[in-house]
Amino acid sequence: MAIKAIIIGGGAAGASAAARARRWSQDADIRLFEAGSMITHAPCGIPYYVGGVVGDASMLKTYSPSEFGKRRNIDVHVNARVTKVDVIDKEIRVLEGGSENTYEWDRLIIATGAKPSVPRMEGVGLKGVYTVRIPDGAPEIKMGLEGASNVAVVGGGYIGLEMTEAVRRSGKRVLLFEALEHVLPTTFDDDVAGILHEELRANGVELHLSEPVLRIEGRDRVERVITEKGSYPIDAVVLAIGVKPDVDLAIEAGARIGETGAVHVNEYMETSVPDVYAAGDVAETRNMLTDKRAWIPLAPPANKMGQVAGANSVSPRSLKFPGVLGTAVTKVFGYYAARTGLVDSQALHEGYTIESRPIKTRSTAEYYPEGETIHIKLTVEKDTGRLLGGQMVSRDKIVAGYIDLIAAFVTFNARIDDIFFSDLSYSPLTSPVWHPVITAARVLSHGRF
Amino acid sequence: MAIKAIIIGGGAAGASAAARARRWSQDADIRLFEAGSMITHAPCGIPYYVGGVVGDASMLKTYSPSEFGKRRNIDVHVNARVTKVDVIDKEIRVLEGGSENTYEWDRLIIATGAKPSVPRMEGVGLKGVYTVRIPDGAPEIKMGLEGASNVAVVGGGYIGLEMTEAVRRSGKRVLLFEALEHVLPTTFDDDVAGILHEELRANGVELHLSEPVLRIEGRDRVERVITEKGSYPIDAVVLAIGVKPDVDLAIEAGARIGETGAVHVNEYMETSVPDVYAAGDVAETRNMLTDKRAWIPLAPPANKMGQVAGANSVSPRSLKFPGVLGTAVTKVFGYYAARTGLVDSQALHEGYTIESRPIKTRSTAEYYPEGETIHIKLTVEKDTGRLLGGQMVSRDKIVAGYIDLIAAFVTFNARIDDIFFSDLSYSPLTSPVWHPVITAARVLSHGRF
Repeated sequence: MAIKAIIIGGGAAGASAAARARRWSQDADIRLFEAGSMITHAPCGIPYYVGGVVGDASMLKTYSPSEFGKRRNIDVHVNARVTKVDVIDKEIRVLEGGSENTYEWDRLIIATGAKPSVPRMEGVGLKGVYTVRIPDGAPEIKMGLEGASNVAVVGGGYIGLEMTEAVRRSGKRVLLFEALEHVLPTTFDDDVAGILHEELRANGVELHLSEPVLRIEGRDRVERVITEKGSYPIDAVVLAIGVKPDVDLAIEAGARIGETGAVHVNEYMETSVPDVYAAGDVAETRNMLTDKRAWIPLAPPANKMGQVAGANSVSPRSLKFPGVLGTAVTKVFGYYAARTGLVDSQALHEGYTIESRPIKTRSTAEYYPEGETIHIKLTVEKDTGRLLGGQMVSRDKIVAGYIDLIAAFVTFNARIDDIFFSDLSYSPLTSPVWHPVITAARVLSHGRF
Repeated sequence: MAIKAIIIGGGAAGASAAARARRWSQDADIRLFEAGSMITHAPCGIPYYVGGVVGDASMLKTYSPSEFGKRRNIDVHVNARVTKVDVIDKEIRVLEGGSENTYEWDRLIIATGAKPSVPRMEGVGLKGVYTVRIPDGAPEIKMGLEGASNVAVVGGGYIGLEMTEAVRRSGKRVLLFEALEHVLPTTFDDDVAGILHEELRANGVELHLSEPVLRIEGRDRVERVITEKGSYPIDAVVLAIGVKPDVDLAIEAGARIGETGAVHVNEYMETSVPDVYAAGDVAETRNMLTDKRAWIPLAPPANKMGQVAGANSVSPRSLKFPGVLGTAVTKVFGYYAARTGLVDSQALHEGYTIESRPIKTRSTAEYYPEGETIHIKLTVEKDTGRLLGGQMVSRDKIVAGYIDLIAAFVTFNARIDDIFFSDLSYSPLTSPVWHPVITAARVLSHGRF
């Protein structure tokens, strides 16, 4: 009998799981259910659609549902909301096209993703208050913001910064409220984030740091944002205080929820319930460096978790997911900001004794024109010289490549000496003869090299 | 008694050696002798000076001799040619300022670099025939080429290609002669080099592949280049058929010459003669991957070999140089071309059973505009999936960062699975959600992921 595999959720993890299950099994009976209208969608692209760089929200996907289903022989259901997961009789109930249908499964993959956190605050339900979730909802955000002149973005994480830029580029006044002391507060150190503060201000963003929003006021539509420091007249609010795993169905299935609030899975992406897997933003995983449980909702690990769950759903325990480092890159107006592993603040919090020293170098040889400054900070364990993480900021996109290099060094437990002696590329128009990453390691060598 | 350390050669390796010897020993007596007028010079920049991107040849250095000497307390002698190395009495003879002087040493570092290979061919001594060596000679090349209308570049290696572009950009007719079947014949595979052939032709370069130059003809100045296929009227010739280690002084010192023709050294950069070190382009080293002797004359390893020799000259056997992978990047008109480790042709030559599959991917998410094509080919060992090397070509400079990532993977013996599951960065404007390097590994997984 062919295995019946059901995947709930058609985002990065769900679509990857379905595709990989098919690749590993020609005869499995594979069904994918997605509550929205799109699958293989790319929520990371929403700020660029809102900002007008990407013309059409329908571009924010890799495949149409029918194309994906046909090419891979997968039964794809969109606009299909799973209302019940039954792990005893191994079936799910799905609301679709006005009726409720039941489907049986032998293996179930929960890939329901994450949803925006909405603060428990007065006024979040007013018209003109938006959260950024899936491309389906993007046109509404875009239209809503078009009529606004004064926009508040609440939260200075990746999505908050990207939305800030998108809205600011359309010429509106933008106030960015961050409750903590600096933008990207959980992923970057304050000194590195400080470079981005200058860039935000230089581009006309009104930056309100250490200023939590207390409430949003208005009769029907948003009119004002209130903080301890003031009352700001506002036409629209983008809430970007973070996301949380969408665990409702997993809880209903009886899956254990981990310490991070996401679904606990092992390296095979198995939940605590037999034959039930979880993958992507709904699942927690392991930090490769600290070996602790981690929940880092980003697209590339979601895709890979999906692959692992999909393969294992039709061929149990055939692939393992090793974990994450939180490698990420974003753009803030002219600057690319990239990070991986543990930054100073995180490493200290984890109890490491660390050493770090921010440096400035260039993106070309000294004598070559057009070079941009590259800011780098590597964080190493003091006694061993082991690399724990890195942060980079530059107007040169090359930092996206260099952060990958640093992530590889962290993955392979590289020490300062390994980095210094690694054979990296050089040409006068791509780097100084002393490579930026090598220079960043070198300044931590106490003059050895 | 303070150690007397003498360094012969003020290029990348020599200057690095002197600086590091000083850093490791405050009281050593350190002398540096350079035959030319500049030290810490950057021959890699010569094509950009000739092409007008870098305004002044004197910019092609990091420090002036006096500045370098003063800052580091090193006795720097420029325009000082070492005429004799005596390893019995431990002294050298130096021709400088019209007189010959003798200096004693306890430790000697030979960092005499490489010099252009000049083919044994009729006409190489004619006026208008140039080789690219050190910045001292660059103004002569530039002036000589300025008067020419039809220029032949002989040799399609890194320097040949960079000089081709420099000359072509100034509007001259350029004929590029490569004796082998494709440009970069010893470092890239034919299929990858083929992309560069199109770019060269699209930029008006007359590409003559598999066409060795037989002789250069002319009365006093060059007038014609003769091959088996024809006779080409030419005003100037740039010879760029390669470089060879400048081993004359090392041979005089009695140092063993290795199988590559460069000075044999161990991991401490010690030659076969006690207290005599060699570093940089004059020395051979080890290929980190094959563990065989290798001679790869590039600036970054030269700098590091210099550091190792310098430290060890005042503090014996304190640092080791692990070897090279031949990581390199160059630009050919609009394309960046980068490589590391063993490409297919090299791996096959070394006896590996390999697998490789060139792919095309993008430098941004599908939906994000302005993405460029990235061509990648990874070469892996068939049975183990171990990464042996990689090649990339793109109009996006990011490949310089990605080749460093691939070099790190090779260094740490990564297999396809390690690459696939590495946590690399993503944003829609810096890469597709499936990272180019991961996609290149994935196509070699036989559908596992």
